[in-house]
Formats: sequence, structure tokens, C-alpha cells
Amino acid sequence: MSETRARVLAALREQRIETASWAFGNSGTRFKVFAQEGVPRNPYEKIADAATVHRFTGVAPTVALHIPWDKVDDYADLAAYAKERGVALGAINANVFQDDDFKLGSVTHPSPAVRAKALAHLVECVDIMDATGSRDLKLWFSDGTNYPGQDNVRARQDRLASALSAVYDRLGDQQRMLLEYKLFEPAFYMTDVPDWGTAYAHCLSLGDRAQVVIDTGHHAPGTNIEFIVAFLLRAGKLGGFDFNSRFYADDDLMVGAADPFQLFRIMCEIVSADALAPAAGIAFMLDQCHNIEPKIQAVIRSVLNVQEATAKALLVDAAALDAAQRAGDVLEANEVLMDAYQTDVRPMLRELRADMGLDPDPVGAFKRSGYLESVTSARVGGSAAGWGA
Amino acid sequence: MSETRARVLAALREQRIETASWAFGNSGTRFKVFAQEGVPRNPYEKIADAATVHRFTGVAPTVALHIPWDKVDDYADLAAYAKERGVALGAINANVFQDDDFKLGSVTHPSPAVRAKALAHLVECVDIMDATGSRDLKLWFSDGTNYPGQDNVRARQDRLASALSAVYDRLGDQQRMLLEYKLFEPAFYMTDVPDWGTAYAHCLSLGDRAQVVIDTGHHAPGTNIEFIVAFLLRAGKLGGFDFNSRFYADDDLMVGAADPFQLFRIMCEIVSADALAPAAGIAFMLDQCHNIEPKIQAVIRSVLNVQEATAKALLVDAAALDAAQRAGDVLEANEVLMDAYQTDVRPMLRELRADMGLDPDPVGAFKRSGYLESVTSARVGGSAAGWGA
Amino acid sequence: MSETRARVLAALREQRIETASWAFGNSGTRFKVFAQEGVPRNPYEKIADAATVHRFTGVAPTVALHIPWDKVDDYADLAAYAKERGVALGAINANVFQDDDFKLGSVTHPSPAVRAKALAHLVECVDIMDATGSRDLKLWFSDGTNYPGQDNVRARQDRLASALSAVYDRLGDQQRMLLEYKLFEPAFYMTDVPDWGTAYAHCLSLGDRAQVVIDTGHHAPGTNIEFIVAFLLRAGKLGGFDFNSRFYADDDLMVGAADPFQLFRIMCEIVSADALAPAAGIAFMLDQCHNIEPKIQAVIRSVLNVQEATAKALLVDAAALDAAQRAGDVLEANEVLMDAYQTDVRPMLRELRADMGLDPDPVGAFKRSGYLESVTSARVGGSAAGWGA
Amino acid sequence: MSETRARVLAALREQRIETASWAFGNSGTRFKVFAQEGVPRNPYEKIADAATVHRFTGVAPTVALHIPWDKVDDYADLAAYAKERGVALGAINANVFQDDDFKLGSVTHPSPAVRAKALAHLVECVDIMDATGSRDLKLWFSDGTNYPGQDNVRARQDRLASALSAVYDRLGDQQRMLLEYKLFEPAFYMTDVPDWGTAYAHCLSLGDRAQVVIDTGHHAPGTNIEFIVAFLLRAGKLGGFDFNSRFYADDDLMVGAADPFQLFRIMCEIVSADALAPAAGIAFMLDQCHNIEPKIQAVIRSVLNVQEATAKALLVDAAALDAAQRAGDVLEANEVLMDAYQTDVRPMLRELRADMGLDPDPVGAFKRSGYLESVTSARVGGSAAGWGA
Repeated sequence: MSETRARVLAALREQRIETASWAFGNSGTRFKVFAQEGVPRNPYEKIADAATVHRFTGVAPTVALHIPWDKVDDYADLAAYAKERGVALGAINANVFQDDDFKLGSVTHPSPAVRAKALAHLVECVDIMDATGSRDLKLWFSDGTNYPGQDNVRARQDRLASALSAVYDRLGDQQRMLLEYKLFEPAFYMTDVPDWGTAYAHCLSLGDRAQVVIDTGHHAPGTNIEFIVAFLLRAGKLGGFDFNSRFYADDDLMVGAADPFQLFRIMCEIVSADALAPAAGIAFMLDQCHNIEPKIQAVIRSVLNVQEATAKALLVDAAALDAAQRAGDVLEANEVLMDAYQTDVRPMLRELRADMGLDPDPVGAFKRSGYLESVTSARVGGSAAGWGA
Repeated sequence: MSETRARVLAALREQRIETASWAFGNSGTRFKVFAQEGVPRNPYEKIADAATVHRFTGVAPTVALHIPWDKVDDYADLAAYAKERGVALGAINANVFQDDDFKLGSVTHPSPAVRAKALAHLVECVDIMDATGSRDLKLWFSDGTNYPGQDNVRARQDRLASALSAVYDRLGDQQRMLLEYKLFEPAFYMTDVPDWGTAYAHCLSLGDRAQVVIDTGHHAPGTNIEFIVAFLLRAGKLGGFDFNSRFYADDDLMVGAADPFQLFRIMCEIVSADALAPAAGIAFMLDQCHNIEPKIQAVIRSVLNVQEATAKALLVDAAALDAAQRAGDVLEANEVLMDAYQTDVRPMLRELRADMGLDPDPVGAFKRSGYLESVTSARVGGSAAGWGA
Repeated sequence: MSETRARVLAALREQRIETASWAFGNSGTRFKVFAQEGVPRNPYEKIADAATVHRFTGVAPTVALHIPWDKVDDYADLAAYAKERGVALGAINANVFQDDDFKLGSVTHPSPAVRAKALAHLVECVDIMDATGSRDLKLWFSDGTNYPGQDNVRARQDRLASALSAVYDRLGDQQRMLLEYKLFEPAFYMTDVPDWGTAYAHCLSLGDRAQVVIDTGHHAPGTNIEFIVAFLLRAGKLGGFDFNSRFYADDDLMVGAADPFQLFRIMCEIVSADALAPAAGIAFMLDQCHNIEPKIQAVIRSVLNVQEATAKALLVDAAALDAAQRAGDVLEANEVLMDAYQTDVRPMLRELRADMGLDPDPVGAFKRSGYLESVTSARVGGSAAGWGA
Repeated sequence: MSETRARVLAALREQRIETASWAFGNSGTRFKVFAQEGVPRNPYEKIADAATVHRFTGVAPTVALHIPWDKVDDYADLAAYAKERGVALGAINANVFQDDDFKLGSVTHPSPAVRAKALAHLVECVDIMDATGSRDLKLWFSDGTNYPGQDNVRARQDRLASALSAVYDRLGDQQRMLLEYKLFEPAFYMTDVPDWGTAYAHCLSLGDRAQVVIDTGHHAPGTNIEFIVAFLLRAGKLGGFDFNSRFYADDDLMVGAADPFQLFRIMCEIVSADALAPAAGIAFMLDQCHNIEPKIQAVIRSVLNVQEATAKALLVDAAALDAAQRAGDVLEANEVLMDAYQTDVRPMLRELRADMGLDPDPVGAFKRSGYLESVTSARVGGSAAGWGA
């Protein structure tokens, strides 16, 4: 047990979770965006918030950017600012869904001119990656149609393949393309990359540096996400996660909030494939909206939720599990898994934090730190960052 | 057959579909609102658009208002303006979801002060009904919670019951409360009125003038909506419909666009319960978003979709259906229904329109009318109406 | 904390979970029933298995019967046999879905003769209740239709209401009717009692002794079951549960196996309404299929899963939760709930069992007891009990 | 228009729909199989029924077999019998889900011995194909797990790949493997081939003669099936369909009964990819259960439903659709599609049948033929065919 514990603690110490700059800005539903106080007004302030999350959790050392929301004149300066605060810039997220031209699509739009504009943006994102030193380009397309007949499904796939290929060719040797899929919204009849199969097929055609990213909120009801994780790991095509959680659709709630057991099962597949360590190349990213709850605290909570699920996954007795599985002992195999899940890992994590020189209670420490009060009084005037606007 | 035809045509001539003022304004998803040209800038212009829909379809003589989006100083003037253009003001829709105070709820909010504010708005809506002569107050609550534990489910029901009761007491003898339900969005863990059962239970407690309104987009996957229609009709508790259509969640697409067969089955329950005529008191309302398609034309198309489904439902051979059902002849009973559904009713509807002095082709006539071009050039400056903003 | 612990342990000691006789017989899917060894061949042997579950768990003192599967000549003898083994007979479950006459329905069938036959069976079940001393008659109707038009939805509701009323009138003063609902299967277009709203409306019409039973596997995707629990508790109309769990449809897996967090949330509503104790009158019943796993062990595991979820629900700090909720502190309120959920209650439960004179490890003790081996060799010949056939 | 009509009629005349032998046998749900009169008792009688369907519809000239349900000593004799009655033997469907050994899986079972047994069955099916001259081997695996942890997801994929490869190698040059996927049932936590992506990935690894078959009932709620059709056609990996329809899960109702608009959209993708004609190599097969309705009549109705949807799809004005799509005219493009869908194609189909020397009304003609009465009196004694048992 002591050996297990040492192994688990070592793995947890090495774990890396990437936060998202946009999680700190205002967000909402189509019905209303409820503004919060102290929200950052520019990329620098977002990075300051992300650094705060890392300061209290110790496992969130990078922050993803969203272009054009996080465009700055000098990315080296932004990177230096981040470094100063203890974090680094992470994945670059393209945005081809908020320009008026993209009403009927971006790279799959029927008009060649609009497609060219979208492609130019994607290429610009790679330029920015060169400047920031980011490894990953994350692509999500809102492209799709709302009505049967609206556009030609196959023609749109051709256009998509063509754009992806152009972007792929532009990537540097150390850069990757992470292709995301989403069943619906904002398109309501069909999206051009609705499921992992579509993303996988395109990535396969593109080459080794194209991989699938799984947003845990982007599936049809009943989808077994950990199966997809296992399948893509086996195929060498899992690039990473956009973590969040959902009860209904793409609810974008805090990861682990809706179904902590599912999160645990996902992390079990990761652990069993030895894909947790940064060297395995899986990007563990948060992509969530904190519409009604305080944002920084919510991100801290989310990081902890991933960490707790990981700790439980690491505790699974792999040998006992394997033995029960081979013996066809259904109940025993399930029991081995559940034994790890039912374990309260919080004491161990508190100890880990103490070892790492952190406060054992990140949420409490953040609250006591006065950071939120401080930014709330400092960030007056200007306009709060949000989704695009 | 001639007798059937006469009966069907008479019923179709009497049919009434209510349009919604907000369908003519800009709308979108949380990701982006794509602005359209010629969009109305005030309630008067919305009514002008609604009147245009009625001018070409002949079956959409009323238009619902949304408060505060359609607040004006002088409702008598607005009503007179509508009358001049051939339409009348319809249901009043309350809005307790776009004020910053309502972040955690309106009538179910934990704070009594917020609840009081919400209630005051609802009462104001009844005041407006008095001014407009509207019969129906339509209530949809975005109230709910995003996280387990966030608030007390039962306490929120108590608060809801209390608010509904206060509003109900304020209604005049000829006024009704129509209570809407919605499974999710913008609340993602629980909504306070998630399903017809909840709405029904509250309406039952309130009294005869409280009835359930069915928004066709507000159900869990797999829900049989026509069952709910039939059940509520049997119980005398169906107040009306908010029509739209969905593939996934509350997509708010044009009614009949996603599943025309479902719309037909709904109208079959209406027809078989003899609830189509205005005297039956069922309000047939549209509640949709036209995010990417031209709005007025989309509303015309929606009215036609309801009309076509109704025509098919009226064609069902009720005696043959009843005989097959009683005989337990599964395939014959289904065949009787499908026979009506497979019928192309468009020729009959063109004839009906000609008889009513309308162009047989409402969409074509609207396009040829130059109305859209005219408002596009006239409605320059000011700010386009939209959801709330 | 010591006071909390005492309260929690006292509540857990009082908890009662009812097992189901049919869980011990063979079951399967439409594709195949995989037979297991040692399966009971008659009601007496089922009761012996149920008693074994109680012997090792201490909280499953009653067993539900299914008629006609568990018909015997002398119910007093059966009850005496149960008593001898430390358990009592529980709810009587009617079965109107396995007779050839019920192909198109039972109490809602178009034919009056078939309806009469179905009603006679229901009345016979009450006769049996008189003989067994059972309090609860559990009614689930497979009635419904497969094709649109197949039968008249409203007429079927009338027939249903009429049958329910006749059965209700037959009940003794101390007897209850528990009405179950199910979204689909075996009927695939419409079921006659598809949701809690329908069951609730009928129970309301019938009277105080008619209550709704929630089968946790019978809902549309995305349904918030704990909301229904809370609503029905508030309305005084929750009669009990048929526990099981599901990933997709009515999977009938072991309760707590698919979504343990959901089970916890359900038990939280029970605890917060003070409805856990037997005096509250809620029947906590298991209704599951053990198609591929050993049955007795699976039932023990299921009882433990309910017990563990209950223990966690009892640990929720109600005062802290209430304070956070009233303050609108979304994250704190959620945290209070999660704190209880994340607690490992297994040590406390082991201690409870030791106090009750039980083996702290029911599954291990059962395995070591040799019971399964013993019945496997004893129950040779005869035909194994199963679903009806 | 006359040219269009000629083109449409020619295409419809060439259309081929394959019936399934097992559709004529008894089937049911896990709750009950309701036996019907006149049901075939052996493969010869099933073929007689299938030939009857072809006799009245003219477009169902082949019938699929299910092994071992349709095992005979002399397949040449069976084929000759079919030919005599005007039909031919079609796809061979393997069955590795009804042997007691397959409780925990067949080709993915943890035990090598069970896997070998399953593989032997698959190879035997190819032997039978050699004897029957069948082109297609259809593989559906019930393999999967019911509980998290029960078995190793990745190991099962390895075993699956290995078995598929062995079978693929055994295929003759003119033979194909059609791999089916299914989200759930009878496995309830995970199936080993849950979605098209998994089937596609395996087929891609195997080679050109491995293709995906789409069972229209095997998807998660909200899945856009026509997208999958279009995607697989573009990738050259669509092998065929198992047609049926569903409201909830794998309901296996008559194709077109639940959502005729969806069936139309699927056929639109087929037509627009020029994949309707037999030369395109897509197998259009029925795979349904007729649990409560007369079987032969239900199969006729199903064939007609596919035919009607095809006729509508053929009527789509492709040039107008393309123009509207390129112009980004959302409503016009949708209107072009809907115009075809709303057309009543039954008169045209009646004419087609008359031209083909058939009764214009296949259902009526079948009823008048006395065939059902004749087999009902002839097929007395013996045991009715059903699902496996």
C-alpha cells in the first residue's frame, strides 16, 4: 500500500490541467449574460486569474487562449507576463463562429470567399502559435445547417477536408491540430463534425499530427464517453479533452459536477493506458462556462474535481481488476473499480498539497487570499471580457 | 367526399394561428446573434410585420406581445395601429429572465425582495392585459438551478405556488393564465417547472382559468407530445401551444420543419377532440427563432406548416379509424391515419386561399410584394429589436 | 460530530429495503435468457434467497411477490415459511402483460372482455393481499400502442381510469395502490401511463390510498428524477421506489451501478423531507434483472448500494446547506452536498453491522457461507423460475 | 416533367429491397412473445412468405437468412425452392448471441475458447455463403458489458479486430463483410461496436470488402442518420441498411412508421449520391419485428414505405436545390426538398405497379389473395419459427 501510495502521489504531482482564458470572462446563455464583478478586461488580466488558479492548486500551469478574443500586439510580452506569474501559454483556440460572414458556415460555407476568410483566420492562429510557442491548435467549427436541404452534406465535407488539409500543411513539426466534434448547437439540423467518428476520419486522412479532442459535453444522450477515450487511445488518435459537464446538452457546467462517476471512468481509461503523464501528449483542458457562480473559484473547484477523479483512478487495483476480468467475475471486477471510486481521496490530496508547499485547502485559501476583492476593486472601468462581443 | 371537403374547408377557414412579436426581431444562440436587415425597431414595426403575415396567409389575425420588450406608453394606440393593419393584439408574455436580479431565479429566488420584484412584473403584465384586452397571460419561468444542492427544490415549489396564486387572484374573469414548462435551459440541473405534470399540478391547484401551454420544443428526447395533448384535453387543462420544432433540444426551428409527422399527430388529437375552433379556447401560437433565415418569410412558412398539418388531420376518416381501432386491426388503423398524412393538401389550400381572396401562394406573393425591400430601406437607423437587449 | 454520527447510525439501523422475488429467477433480454445454476424453482425457494440477503445485510426484511409467478395454494403457509427465515411478505405485484389476450392491452384494451379479464386479475391480487397481509398493490401496465393511430389515446385513458377506480374501491382501509409509470417498452409508440404526471393525475382522482411509485429506470433521457421525488413528497403522493439503474433505457442494472451520484441525490430528497423511516410510508423496493451476474450476490450488492447512498445523504450538513442556499452561495451549497457524497461511508457501515451482530462484509460473508453452492446442488431438476413463461 | 417522371419510374422499377426470413417468425419483447397463427415453421416456409411479399410488391426479390435459425441440410435445395417462387437468397446473418457460452461475449469474450467457438460460427457462415451464393455476410455482435470495470475495453477491441481479420481473410473475392453497430442492448454499459465510427475504423483496417451497415434503429437519441449515410457514401464505406423504425430505442417497428420524413432524408442522400441502383452495391434490407401486427402484411407495408420514400427522394429537383444551396437561400433550399416530400406519390406508384403487371394495391391484393388463411390452416403442428429458442 505504501508503494501504491507513493506511485499515486508521484503521478498526481506530475499531472497537468490547462485552464481556459475565456472561463474568467462573462458568459451566459442565449437568454441572458449575467455580468460578474472583477471580471478581466483583457488577456493579461485573464492570465492573472489563471495564474491564481495555479498558485492555489499547483497543477494548472498553462492557460489556453482564444483568438481573436485574446489577440494582443505582442505575444512575447504576454508570454513573459504569464511566465512571471508562474504559468505558460497553452493551446490556441480558433474562432470562426462570430463574424457576420459566418452565418451559414466558415470553412464549409457555400461561398469560396467566406471559406477563404475562415481559412485565413486559421492560418493566422498558427502564426500566433509560432509567436506563443504553443503546441496545439484547437479547432471547433460551429459549421452546420438548421434545415434539411439547406446545404449539401457531402460538398461540405469536401470543403472541410480541403480547409483542414491547408491548415495541417501550415503546421510546424512540433505543432498539432486538435479537432473537436459537437453533436449540435449552434447548428440544429446537422453539424459538419458531429461525432468522434467524423473527427477521427479526417484526422486519419491528415496525418500523425492531427488528433481528436473530446469535449465531454458534446455527445448525444447515452453516449459512453470512456469507450471513445479507450478507442482513440488504442488508435493513437486522442489529442486531449475539453472538460466540462452536462446534464442535458452542452451545459458547460464544472467538470465532475453532473456525473463524477463518469469522470472517474474516463480517467480510469487514461490511467490504464498510461496516458496521464505529460509525456503521453494528452492535453487535459477545461472548457466551461461559469454563468452564475464566481469564476475563479469555480475553475479551482474544477481543477480539484479532475484531480480527485484522477486520484481515484490511480487507486484502482489493476492486477485485481485484470484477474477478475479474465475470470469473467462480473461482480468482483465491478467491485474492484467501485472500491477505488468510493475511497475518499481528499485526505491524500491535502497531504500532497502540503508536500508541494501549497495550502491543503485551495478553495479556502483562495477565499482568504483577498484576490477576488482585490481585482474587483481594481478592475473598474473598461469592458469586461466575454464571449466575443 | 364533397361533404368532407366542405367540412374540412370550413374548419380551415376558421382556424387561427397567433404570431409572436419577437419572431421578427433579431435572435441567435449564445454563440452569436446574426443581425438581419429590415428588422423592426419597435413594437409598431413588429406589428406591421405580423400584419403582413396575416395579409398573405389569412389565418394569423393576432400577434402576441412580450413585456418588457414590447412596452409602449399607450397600448390603446398600439391596439388601434394593429387593428388598422388587420390584426389584433394577442397573449401577453411575461419576462422574468433578463434582469440582473434574476440570476438565481425570479419567483423562486431565495431572496424575498427578488421574488417581490418578479411578482410585480407579473402583475404589471396583467395591467397591460387590461389595457390591450388580451385574454391570455403566458408565463414561462427560466427559474431553476445549475448545480445539485444549489437551492431547495421543495422550497422553490412553495415560492412558485405562492407567486402563481397571487397572479391568479389578480386576473379578471375573462383572463387566463397559461403556464409553460421547459425541461432545461437556461437552468441546467433543474428547472422549477420542468414538465407538463408540474404545470398541470399547479394549474389544478389554482383553478379553472389556469391552464397548461405546451411548447413543442421543451421536452426530453422521446417524449410523446400528442399523448400530453390528448391527456390535457381530456382533463380540460390544455390552454394552448407554443409551436416550433426541434431536432435536439429547444432548437426553436420553424414548426413542422424537423418532424412534420409529429405535428400532424398533434393536430389529429386536436381535431379528434373537436378543439380546433376558436370557441374551444386553445391558443395556437408560434414561438420560434429565425436565426439564419429571413424572418417574415419564415413566419409565413410556419403558419402554412401548421395549416397543412391541420388540413391533413381534418382529412382523417374518423369512422374508419374508430372501426379499425375497435376491431384491434393495428395495420388498418395505422393505414387510415397515414392515408390522410400522405395526402397532398396543398392544392386544396390553394383553392381555399383563392376563395378567401388571397393569393394561392403566400410565400411567392410575399416575395413579389416588395415588402421586405421596402422595410429594409425604411428601417435604417435606430436599433433593431432583439431578445431583450 | 458524535451526535451526528449517532443520528445517522440510528437512521441506518431503521432503514428497510424490500427485495423482489423475481430478482432471484432467471431473466434476460429479448435476445436471450442465460440460465444460472441454483436458481429457485418456486416461491419458497425465492423466499429462501431473499431471507439470505436479509441475513447478511440486516436491512432487507421483506420480499415482494409477483402474481401469477408467485401463486401458491396457501399464502399463510408461505408467510409462515418467510417468517421462519426472518423475513415477511411485502408488496403484491400484478401482472397483466403475459397472457396472450393482452397483446393489445389489458385494462385499456379495446375489447370489454379483455378488460374484464385484466380487472379480475387485479382484484385477485387484492384477495391475495388479504391473505398475505400485504399493504401495497403495485400496478405496472405494459398497456400502450406501437403505431400511431392504433388506438384512441383518450378512450384508453377512460378505460384506465375506470379499472383503477374499481380496484381502488376493492382495497381495504390499510391497503394502498402504488401506480407505476414507464415511458416505453414493451409498447413503443405510446404507453398509457408514460410519466409521473399521468400517474399522479390518476392517483389524485382516486384518493389518498393511491400513490405514485417511481421506477428509477423508466424515464426519458435527461429527466431529473430527484425533482420528481421532491415534488411528489411535497404533494403527499410518493408511495415508493422500484430501484434499479440504467445507462440507456430500462436497463434494470443494479441500483447505483450506473449513476451513484443520482442515487445519492434521490436519497438526499428523501432525507431532507424526513421520509426515510418506515413510518413515513415510502416503500423502498428493488426491481432489477441480474442477467449475467450471480443473482443473490447482486441483490446483496444492491442493498448495500442503497444503504451507502443513504448514509451519505444522512451526512449532509443540513444547516450549512440551508445557510448557503439562502445566501445564494452556489458553490458553497454545492460543496456542502459534495462533501457528504465524497465521504467514504463504508467504515461506518461496517461498524453498524458489527453492532447489529452481522458480518461487517456482507458480500464476503455470503461467499464464505457456502449458500450458493448448497442451493446449486440442492436445486436440481424442476424448472428454474423466470419471467413468467 | 414527363422526362422526370420517366426517370423516376425507371429508377423505381429497378429498386431492390431485401426482406428478412426472421421477420416472418414470432418475435417479441423480453416481457412476452405473442404467438401468431400461420407463422412459418422452417426456412422453406419463411421463404414462401418472403416470395409472397415479392409477388405483391415486385421490388423485394431477395430474402436474407439467419444462421443458425435458417440452417438446412441442403442449401442448393433451399435456393432452388426460392427460385421456383421467384426470389433468391440474400445476405447471411451470423448469430453469436444465443448460445449459453456467449453470456459475456462472443468474439470479444475473455476466454480464448469461447472466442474460438464464435469465430468458428462466423467461418461456418462463410461456408454457407459459398453454398447459397450470397454476396454479403452481415455481422452484428451483441458483445459488450453491463457494468463498469466488467472487462477491458481495449482488450476487447483487440480481440474484435483479430476475429474480424480472420473472417475477412476467409471471404471470397466476390463476398463482402457488412459490419453493424448498435449503441446498446443486450449489453447495457458498453457495446463493443457502439457506433458507426467504430465500425468504420475496423472496416478501414480490414480492406475494401468490409463495409458498414446502418441499422436505422441503433443510434443515440438525436443522431442525424442521413449525415452518416452521406459520410459513408463519400468514404466508399456504406455497405447497406437494416431498415426499421424507432421512437425510443431499438424499437424495430416498421420502417417509415415512426418518422417518415427521416426515411425520406436518408433516401435523398442515397439518390443524390446515385447509390440507389443495384449496381451501386448498397444493400437495402429490412430488419424488423412484427410483435403485434400480422407479419406478412407488415412486411409488405414496410416495402411500400421504403418505395414511397424513394419515390419522393427521386422527385427532388436537384438543379433547383443546388442553385438554392449555392445561393445560401435557406428557405428556398428547404422548400425544394419539402416540395418533393409533400407530394403524394401513391398514384404514380399505383401506375408503376400496373405497368409491372402487379395489382396497384399490394396490401389489398394480399388480403384478397387468401394466402394468410391458407397458411394458417396449413401450418398446424410443428413449432413456429421464432428468435432462436
